[in-house]
Amino acid sequence: MAIADTPPPPYYVAIITVERSDDDEGYGSMAEAMYEAAHARDGFLGMEWVFDPATRTGITASYWSTAESIREWKLDAEHAVAQRLGVERWYNAYRVRVARVERDYEWATSVPSH
Amino acid sequence: MAIADTPPPPYYVAIITVERSDDDEGYGSMAEAMYEAAHARDGFLGMEWVFDPATRTGITASYWSTAESIREWKLDAEHAVAQRLGVERWYNAYRVRVARVERDYEWATSVPSH
Repeated sequence: MAIADTPPPPYYVAIITVERSDDDEGYGSMAEAMYEAAHARDGFLGMEWVFDPATRTGITASYWSTAESIREWKLDAEHAVAQRLGVERWYNAYRVRVARVERDYEWATSVPSH
Repeated sequence: MAIADTPPPPYYVAIITVERSDDDEGYGSMAEAMYEAAHARDGFLGMEWVFDPATRTGITASYWSTAESIREWKLDAEHAVAQRLGVERWYNAYRVRVARVERDYEWATSVPSH
């Protein structure tokens, strides 16, 4: 994962915090479908994700130009999950927060790639 | 890490995405100091963090009742870092985003602990 190259605020973020179950069957293809659905959506700005295999917890932050584009992606994501094995198989718990980014700042040792 | 037990929106979040260096010297005590500084602050609502040792990337989301409480914590955090070895030792890059949470939803297989 690399830090997402987002534009100056304001923009929107969907923060998804998860406690994964021990069941990985079908999970990879569902996650891939959600990622591809995000990339295909107007308004998608970037995504960051970290998963710790030791604790099976994860955080995904996806960035969007409007709150409406997040709502549309949520419908895509729910459809992708419904077509497969269902959320109760892969997660013990999750929480989604939608927020409006008001400011940001960064630091890097190297010259940005853009 | 457990999912933070935040109140109904609105509230604020500071999302810190990091690419860590290979140097762990002093990192633990600095991270502990930042965590304790957050807990001691008025307006602190909870914190979630995930670090993947394989990629050395991490995301920390801390939740706050106001944007002002995040600004005060940022000063504490900068002080904690300055007292120690410095940000350039522990990070290759980081980005901080401050956002206003407008809505959230959750799902859990078990009864919440509160």
